[in-house]
Amino acid sequence: MSDFTRDEIDAVYRLLAARRDMRHFLSDPLDSALLGRLLAAAHLAPSVGLMQPWRFIHICDRALRTRIHALVEQERVRTAQALGERDQEFMRLKVEGILECGALLVAGLAPDRDKHVFGRRTMPEMDLASVACAIQNLWLAARAEGVGMGWVSLFEPEALRELLRMPIGSRPVAVLCLGYVSEFYPRPMLEISAWAQRCSLKTLVHIDHWSEPPELGASLS
Amino acid sequence: MSDFTRDEIDAVYRLLAARRDMRHFLSDPLDSALLGRLLAAAHLAPSVGLMQPWRFIHICDRALRTRIHALVEQERVRTAQALGERDQEFMRLKVEGILECGALLVAGLAPDRDKHVFGRRTMPEMDLASVACAIQNLWLAARAEGVGMGWVSLFEPEALRELLRMPIGSRPVAVLCLGYVSEFYPRPMLEISAWAQRCSLKTLVHIDHWSEPPELGASLS
Repeated sequence: MSDFTRDEIDAVYRLLAARRDMRHFLSDPLDSALLGRLLAAAHLAPSVGLMQPWRFIHICDRALRTRIHALVEQERVRTAQALGERDQEFMRLKVEGILECGALLVAGLAPDRDKHVFGRRTMPEMDLASVACAIQNLWLAARAEGVGMGWVSLFEPEALRELLRMPIGSRPVAVLCLGYVSEFYPRPMLEISAWAQRCSLKTLVHIDHWSEPPELGASLS
Repeated sequence: MSDFTRDEIDAVYRLLAARRDMRHFLSDPLDSALLGRLLAAAHLAPSVGLMQPWRFIHICDRALRTRIHALVEQERVRTAQALGERDQEFMRLKVEGILECGALLVAGLAPDRDKHVFGRRTMPEMDLASVACAIQNLWLAARAEGVGMGWVSLFEPEALRELLRMPIGSRPVAVLCLGYVSEFYPRPMLEISAWAQRCSLKTLVHIDHWSEPPELGASLS
């Protein structure tokens, strides 16, 4: 039925389950051929109306990396303040590996997106969905290659846009830390740290109409 | 280096390249175990602060499917009007397979997302990015299993929310057509139809700062 073998299909499911949002990295650099494969994987993503809204900035300059880290650190403190009673718990979490990771990318949305109306007339934010699919492709390719990735969204997008001299109308959406790791977390780090727990799939699937509790429990065992 | 073999890594890249946004389907139904595997794959996606904002509605009622199709058809006409000079070209494209596909899902955002501040204080739209990653996981798992998927975003989200009795504050983001296909398009259908062309990856990657033209050309061959 499929042009993928049972073993290949199993490897895909294993990959989806093994991908982790990493914050601990070894500092070994990634070679440029590997990075090129990962970016090519991102560029194979679907996009609304084939608009391909994604852009990537490879941060090579160490001083620039330090400035990005400072922006994220500033937002980390502001997030803690906004969290209220969980602020101390949040501040104990490791939320990024920007300074130590082997390669740093920023993913963003290109400017001049208004001309793309196909699939976006009522939901212009579908361009962000396309970039997210590209990032997920990159993430999965990296994990298959034994490379970890962490998606950091703790920053003020306008400040990062200016720092990277991105044009008005473009928008950074992710700081992506990439690198080799000593081990992949066995479960999401926020689950291990007891920040949040995995929901049961049964609580997330409805039949025909929204209902509480959801109804697919009977068919998803 | 990786816990995936060279053959498995190659299969992953082949999968990323073979995934297509499908609009032509056979009407054979998908069995519920397969659908459960695909939904479980979606639920393995990363999410900002582990908020898991995704919900899925499995449309089983044929009359409801017809009503969803009518909503999409209405938006298809409005999109053509908004497109101006490319309206006739757009109207000739097949943009969905809602009535004929083997299974129909609607993916959406759960309500009450404001309490999730982690990674969203400055960019609340990261919840949509998480749902998009879940949809991409589902898409890739489906393709590995030999099942096609099409993501339709031609609808008025408030109208679809009301039709599916989704609570205020929740939001549908994708109508997902799933099903077996007679063949997968060799290239994106919008490329085959000459609606749009693939950009070269070299035009999408910068080093350190945004520049036009981008600078990674030298290292990405």
